[in-house]
Amino acid sequence: MSGSAASRRPDRLTPRFPLRAHRELEERARRAFPDGIYGHVNARDLPPGYPQYFARGDGAWLWDVDGNPYLDLMCSWGPILLGHHEPHVAAAARAQAERGDCLNGPGPEFVELAERFTSMIPYASWTVFCKNGTDATTLAVRIARAASGRERVLAARGAYHGVAPWCVPGGVGTTVGERETIEGFDFNDLESVERAVTGLESDIAAIVVCPIRHDLRHDLQLPDSGFARGLRELCDQIGAALILDEVRCGLRLGASGSWDHLGVEPDLSAWSKAIANGYPLACVLGSDAFRDAAARTYTTGSFWFAGVPVAAALATLEVVADTDALAIMQRSGERLKDGLAAMAEREGLSVMLSGPPQMPFMTFDEDTPEMALSMHWASECVRRGLYLHPTHNWFLSAAHGDAEIDQAIAVAAEAFAATAQARAAGTIKD
Amino acid sequence: MSGSAASRRPDRLTPRFPLRAHRELEERARRAFPDGIYGHVNARDLPPGYPQYFARGDGAWLWDVDGNPYLDLMCSWGPILLGHHEPHVAAAARAQAERGDCLNGPGPEFVELAERFTSMIPYASWTVFCKNGTDATTLAVRIARAASGRERVLAARGAYHGVAPWCVPGGVGTTVGERETIEGFDFNDLESVERAVTGLESDIAAIVVCPIRHDLRHDLQLPDSGFARGLRELCDQIGAALILDEVRCGLRLGASGSWDHLGVEPDLSAWSKAIANGYPLACVLGSDAFRDAAARTYTTGSFWFAGVPVAAALATLEVVADTDALAIMQRSGERLKDGLAAMAEREGLSVMLSGPPQMPFMTFDEDTPEMALSMHWASECVRRGLYLHPTHNWFLSAAHGDAEIDQAIAVAAEAFAATAQARAAGTIKD
Repeated sequence: MSGSAASRRPDRLTPRFPLRAHRELEERARRAFPDGIYGHVNARDLPPGYPQYFARGDGAWLWDVDGNPYLDLMCSWGPILLGHHEPHVAAAARAQAERGDCLNGPGPEFVELAERFTSMIPYASWTVFCKNGTDATTLAVRIARAASGRERVLAARGAYHGVAPWCVPGGVGTTVGERETIEGFDFNDLESVERAVTGLESDIAAIVVCPIRHDLRHDLQLPDSGFARGLRELCDQIGAALILDEVRCGLRLGASGSWDHLGVEPDLSAWSKAIANGYPLACVLGSDAFRDAAARTYTTGSFWFAGVPVAAALATLEVVADTDALAIMQRSGERLKDGLAAMAEREGLSVMLSGPPQMPFMTFDEDTPEMALSMHWASECVRRGLYLHPTHNWFLSAAHGDAEIDQAIAVAAEAFAATAQARAAGTIKD
Repeated sequence: MSGSAASRRPDRLTPRFPLRAHRELEERARRAFPDGIYGHVNARDLPPGYPQYFARGDGAWLWDVDGNPYLDLMCSWGPILLGHHEPHVAAAARAQAERGDCLNGPGPEFVELAERFTSMIPYASWTVFCKNGTDATTLAVRIARAASGRERVLAARGAYHGVAPWCVPGGVGTTVGERETIEGFDFNDLESVERAVTGLESDIAAIVVCPIRHDLRHDLQLPDSGFARGLRELCDQIGAALILDEVRCGLRLGASGSWDHLGVEPDLSAWSKAIANGYPLACVLGSDAFRDAAARTYTTGSFWFAGVPVAAALATLEVVADTDALAIMQRSGERLKDGLAAMAEREGLSVMLSGPPQMPFMTFDEDTPEMALSMHWASECVRRGLYLHPTHNWFLSAAHGDAEIDQAIAVAAEAFAATAQARAAGTIKD
């Protein structure tokens, strides 16, 4: 994959400014949507010059609507695992579309994919497919509540689990009753979990946790094995379900689940994003002990049985199983982290590279609370054609080979130099 | 469209039994899912012989995984508006997939579709796109709560608004707090709404209502204009939002909204199913008065900005605007209702044909509470290759022309004869 992506590499990287097509769309979008483009892809709070509208993707590359190419380190915020428009997945989706997509019931591929998932993930004995990550996390919580007859749920403070009323950041438009059963704890702090549990042992239906800490604007944190094992033991002790929110990490950190290497098995897990390389799909996986509760927990959706995303997921899992896609991604991520650290040091900038290599993130040690240095550096990257995010973790794909990483490091180095210069000149402002 | 669909009509209709591929999949599905295929497409509670797995769709036709063709009166439970795999929509989706689907932000088509919707629907000044009908109904409720600062919501008893905790039928796995702010009323019974409101006038954020009553197992009911106007007046009086749940009816009952002919404009509406002819898309439309609240109500999804379903929706709306697709559907529905009534009468069976012609439904006047006659008749239809549902309303598409309807009526007539015979013989049991 890295080879084919490399062969499609554009000749020039630096975008042309101004972004004329962007500006026209931006103006129209302010009227057509409540306040322009919404959600996580909203570029309004990013530095000027960040592209908002995209026309095309191929391998590790993206083109905005003005025709400017970018080397992409966001991978559509996670869904793109093997590269944009990966040929094997795209062909499987096209073939399935010719056979059948949204019909009166599922096709054989629907059963096949469920079998594939349950054979890949050690603790999983059944699957429920849905569409959004939010569908999956919310269904997992419902199943845990159905199994235990309890209402309370523990979730890490600052963690993102979707936009359902129980978990949406900020909680605008939700009721007190929709959120009052959620208790907070701190990631990697087992004592904070124990404090939250004390006195409520028989009321807690589930503990929901992400495989790593990947909160916005924070250095990423890998899980302490004692924390993960402690959660498992605590859940067993009080009869609660351990729910692993794999939506952002799932597949990228390993084909057998993101906590498999720690020897910790959740009861339920929620997946989405990367499982179909960009096609809309999500699922809940669960252990046999939760099968009856899952069977009683009614859920459905108009497009949940459609074949195209399912065929895309089967093709994605084939590539993951049959190639060194995940290993490439990990190696490339290490190369990127090492390269960025070296280039920052060369410019006298002290940075923190955090996260697993496949989902890296970088902060400046001496940044302001508003992350002015990150904002400045990211804008220097994007104007040179390297697309990454200043406050959200990045994502690599299997289409990111050595050549792409070296190009990313070279652009980043120029951006470090420009940032160091601007900092010395005192022109970086919050 | 009806022409091209007719030319693809299969030579023979009666399915071959037994359904061997089905049976094998069914067995595997019992293990791979909590209890086999789930949700609204689950065929387990339908009469024996109902196909569960489908391989292909084309125009008004479906093929199951054993290769048996069916004349389809369910249209994937609503999403198929113009016929399965409609060529214009399929070509638009293919072309968009080659350009870009799930990227780091939306493409120009995203803005264009929002503009198209807001110009089509008189009260709509903005759009928020999402994936599921549940996403849209739940977001509309959140926006109404954000706008008013109130928590209570009125929804018709027995109406289906999705699978979010506030509305999922049965409520398994939900908390008391998630559902305690929902108050019931009866469709077309304004007094029941007034009773529910009394004493709570300043607590009610919204009244949610479907354009018609389309509850499972019930004759469909068109709205009394006094009911619809009364809801509007009541909402204005108490400062609540009127939310129209267009998920099932939207587009099928008219291109300017399902209550436009009544002169009643909601503040917010939720759409999905038919808007992209089977591609996964949903949206909330809202009036300018709710723009600020919508802008404050954070929502997003990993696949919400993908281009393919948006391009499919644009193509769908083009066909709706440029052809007599909606008129064909209405005329065909009238032909179907008249034909079924006549054929039932010929066999001495008294039936009720209800609903708008585009979404008809039929019940037997002398049926049992378990709808044994409907079950029997539907099974006689399906074994002759006419796919419809005994307890859920049906859907027509623009690919249902006179030839398809006449073929449906002919099959239905045989099924009426068989049902009358079985009834006389006393072999129909609950």
